[in-house]
Amino acid sequence: MRREEPLAIVAGSGALPALLAQAAQETGHPVVIVDLDGEADAGFGRCEVHTLRYGEVGRFLKLLEARDCRTLVMAGGITRPSIAAIRPDWGAVKLMPRVARILMGGDDSLLRGVANLLDEHGLRLVSPLDVAPHLAAPGGLIAGPEPSARLLADIDVGRRTALALGDTDAGQAVIVDAGRAIALEGLEGTDAMIARAGALRTDGRWRSPPRSGVLVKAAKPSQDMRLDVPTIGPDTVLAAHAAGLAGIAVQAGRVLLVERDRLEGLAAERGVFVWGVS
Amino acid sequence: MRREEPLAIVAGSGALPALLAQAAQETGHPVVIVDLDGEADAGFGRCEVHTLRYGEVGRFLKLLEARDCRTLVMAGGITRPSIAAIRPDWGAVKLMPRVARILMGGDDSLLRGVANLLDEHGLRLVSPLDVAPHLAAPGGLIAGPEPSARLLADIDVGRRTALALGDTDAGQAVIVDAGRAIALEGLEGTDAMIARAGALRTDGRWRSPPRSGVLVKAAKPSQDMRLDVPTIGPDTVLAAHAAGLAGIAVQAGRVLLVERDRLEGLAAERGVFVWGVS
Repeated sequence: MRREEPLAIVAGSGALPALLAQAAQETGHPVVIVDLDGEADAGFGRCEVHTLRYGEVGRFLKLLEARDCRTLVMAGGITRPSIAAIRPDWGAVKLMPRVARILMGGDDSLLRGVANLLDEHGLRLVSPLDVAPHLAAPGGLIAGPEPSARLLADIDVGRRTALALGDTDAGQAVIVDAGRAIALEGLEGTDAMIARAGALRTDGRWRSPPRSGVLVKAAKPSQDMRLDVPTIGPDTVLAAHAAGLAGIAVQAGRVLLVERDRLEGLAAERGVFVWGVS
Repeated sequence: MRREEPLAIVAGSGALPALLAQAAQETGHPVVIVDLDGEADAGFGRCEVHTLRYGEVGRFLKLLEARDCRTLVMAGGITRPSIAAIRPDWGAVKLMPRVARILMGGDDSLLRGVANLLDEHGLRLVSPLDVAPHLAAPGGLIAGPEPSARLLADIDVGRRTALALGDTDAGQAVIVDAGRAIALEGLEGTDAMIARAGALRTDGRWRSPPRSGVLVKAAKPSQDMRLDVPTIGPDTVLAAHAAGLAGIAVQAGRVLLVERDRLEGLAAERGVFVWGVS
């Protein structure tokens, strides 16, 4: 990004949009926040915030044009709107045939379709990792205690499993204990998968000493980092701790750490390691 | 197996042990049923049934010796006993150091350990598929309606995903819809995974027309079929139907069909296909 060039942040929930806003401002970019239907949390300081409803595509394009903003980043969680909640404006109606075709595909093709659509309007979608590269997980120990050799072996099994899964467009995370996959992420998401592993331990189907098992999270080999960056944060540490896991391993450079200070504090306090796999 | 040679069936719950007993008798083998702590269901006709408690290893070995029985098959579900429920007899105590070492490994190494242990006592463990090869899934349409080209494409994605998972000692089953993995089996088992996919559909996170999504179940490439044959039956069809799936695909020759008549009837009645992937 050219210095002084404005950046639009399409903001969902969580701390990441505000972290990106801060990073962009610190490197000299004016920031326009587009809050999707009230999904965004507070914390944008003095940034300009516009709340748009799902479907207000025309308004969105006009807003960016008025700010001479040609670069945007999408970040944060969104509750997928039901079709009924979408109120298409004229700008959206014009795009309907395209959007309908995009919606027919899976998650990945949907996201790629959106990126192509933006491209046709002269807008460039960048990755949160482009805006704030310092948020990417480093290799080695990130927080908490040093993992044992046994846990490093589990991390390696998890890395290979996540890789095998990634090639088939499945989830990005797996929980491994003593070389065995305890839980694999599908559509339910990482948090629900961690909770499932915790329940398997509680009901005795996963028998293991406390503080065993590692969560391994990676990007798909083909993942488009502009559209969907795997992320962990303090909540992931709390969830891992609640499920009795020993720690969390993430793919270095391709998984984003949000609220690193809080993450480090919690990891140390709860004795849960966070490790970057290079 | 030599004709007239007796066969011991270590029986857990479900219909499979009785199906094996029937198949063995029809091919001229006297059958001894070993019911594990009351896990076995009824239906063994005039076969000899002995109920042994977990841990009665000495009694088990003596029983087989008295019947001149050197071949055994294990089948059916078992509730894994808690350590407290195991009452080791002297035969078990002698094997304790070995058993302890076996228990330290994962599921696979546990089963392999048991097989090696039996081998040392001159006992040969065979696969349910050796006893009743006609129970193996054939290729092509097994029951219910013919799957569409779109569903066959999902089956292919599932087959590749299950294969990728198999190499990493994870589960054996996956649910795929429109090319995407909705749910992947870990330690929770196939039934719980199917229920999870159903819940994801109900709560709107998996958006899809009714009767879409396929369950694909396969053996691991390295799976020891003597110890753990993947199985489907009428309950699998009911679970798939309840989760709104279009059908079930199984690896031909390596997945076992129990109660095929009932399975076929239910598949036709509910409009759920069952397909064998060659």
